[in-house]
Amino acid sequence: MKRFSLNQKTVQQWSLPDAIDASAAAGLNWIGLWREPVQEYGVERTAALVADAGLRVSSLCRGGFLTTTDDTDRRRRLDDNRRAIDEAAAVGTDVLVLVAGGLPDGTRDVDGARSMVHDGVAELAPYAGDRGVRLAIEPLHPMFCSDRCVIATLSQSLDIAEQFPASQVGVVVDAYHVWWDPDAYRQITRAGAGSRITSYQVCDWVTPLPAGVLTGRGMMGDGVIELRRLREACDDAGYDGPIEVEIFNDVLWSRPGQEVLDLAMDRYREHVR
Amino acid sequence: MKRFSLNQKTVQQWSLPDAIDASAAAGLNWIGLWREPVQEYGVERTAALVADAGLRVSSLCRGGFLTTTDDTDRRRRLDDNRRAIDEAAAVGTDVLVLVAGGLPDGTRDVDGARSMVHDGVAELAPYAGDRGVRLAIEPLHPMFCSDRCVIATLSQSLDIAEQFPASQVGVVVDAYHVWWDPDAYRQITRAGAGSRITSYQVCDWVTPLPAGVLTGRGMMGDGVIELRRLREACDDAGYDGPIEVEIFNDVLWSRPGQEVLDLAMDRYREHVR
Repeated sequence: MKRFSLNQKTVQQWSLPDAIDASAAAGLNWIGLWREPVQEYGVERTAALVADAGLRVSSLCRGGFLTTTDDTDRRRRLDDNRRAIDEAAAVGTDVLVLVAGGLPDGTRDVDGARSMVHDGVAELAPYAGDRGVRLAIEPLHPMFCSDRCVIATLSQSLDIAEQFPASQVGVVVDAYHVWWDPDAYRQITRAGAGSRITSYQVCDWVTPLPAGVLTGRGMMGDGVIELRRLREACDDAGYDGPIEVEIFNDVLWSRPGQEVLDLAMDRYREHVR
Repeated sequence: MKRFSLNQKTVQQWSLPDAIDASAAAGLNWIGLWREPVQEYGVERTAALVADAGLRVSSLCRGGFLTTTDDTDRRRRLDDNRRAIDEAAAVGTDVLVLVAGGLPDGTRDVDGARSMVHDGVAELAPYAGDRGVRLAIEPLHPMFCSDRCVIATLSQSLDIAEQFPASQVGVVVDAYHVWWDPDAYRQITRAGAGSRITSYQVCDWVTPLPAGVLTGRGMMGDGVIELRRLREACDDAGYDGPIEVEIFNDVLWSRPGQEVLDLAMDRYREHVR
């Protein structure tokens, strides 16, 4: 289980210390963190807690949301991303996950929004690289294109990432977001060849989707994604880093955290490893 | 309004004769039909009613669902598609919309399912061409990939269609399904160059999506899709056929059909034409 990483959002019913303790008690090496609980607990305190538990942070979620038509708002968002980069460095991860942002309110110009993402990454990339952090552009499933992330495919993520050094910008391969893409495997190979894969994340695609679709992610094995095939593709492309389990699911959130962690570890062995 | 076509599913609160009468009364030239109400009313009776009203049928929805691992089931589905082709010819349209089908129950092999679609089209294409009907492969939004349609992009649709004569197989450009695709405009150009565009369909992308996502389609202008830009791209690619308004929406279905038709015509003028 040396690559398994519990993304703390999967067990948001747990406090940050509980998630860290449980991960360490389970013999895990990694944990994936989110900014809000880290800020709440304190960035330096979190770093100390993680280190004391013998864990490493696989990624920090999340920066991004770079799409806005207002200049003041844009500067505010870029400042917040710089803080996110600082926080990633402080908790000891070199991966800051970026969710690009959707269409600015009241607009329909998807190409324009995509240009805003490029421009924001261009402004942040050197700052990240100087602090040993890589901006990890995560393509989100096209059903999130309008309201969360105008970057909908690995190909798009790589088109942006490759304009910057691999030490500054990479991509996330999240099985949930890319499994449907007929071009996914070719793009994973491309990403690996350029040392752009910063993270492989797993959960499963389950239907029917719930209202709002955000919390429709399923436990590995409950859906249709070829999780092992995608993992092997990432491996073949040269990625040997942590594999994060990131699930947003109301039923799992209502269960005791330890049950969810145990189940996730079992399903990881069965469907991913 | 000479290209406007009311897809009868948009006003499923109307009977088939009501939808035909209202379209004719509004001075329209086209109507889009579905198999189930046509079968219920009678194929020949429908053909006569449409002709008497001075309308033409822009497309018949739908064939497809070609993904199954059971041989008997496969033959049954192919037979049903041949009936659909016959029905399209009988009501006087040369466009049979194909929804490919999702993953066969209990399977995860998305590449295998995509091969089944190709093989099914190969078996049906000559039969369609002989009857003056084109199989119109419709890529559905990737959120439908697992349970409705493993063909998720125009590029995929064209990869299949181009293996057959353009007189036998084409593609549907439905704004709802393709708007997010960074490759959409290039693929529309490709489709037009090969005379593969059989239909341009419009509605709008509105969030949040409802549970099950199927009835989340919005009225043109209520969402974020660049409907006019897509229409102009189809025009520039050489498509000059009917433009179907196809909306699945519980709120619109609860309103009087005439209000929905009037609104659709207004919004078409404002956002599409």
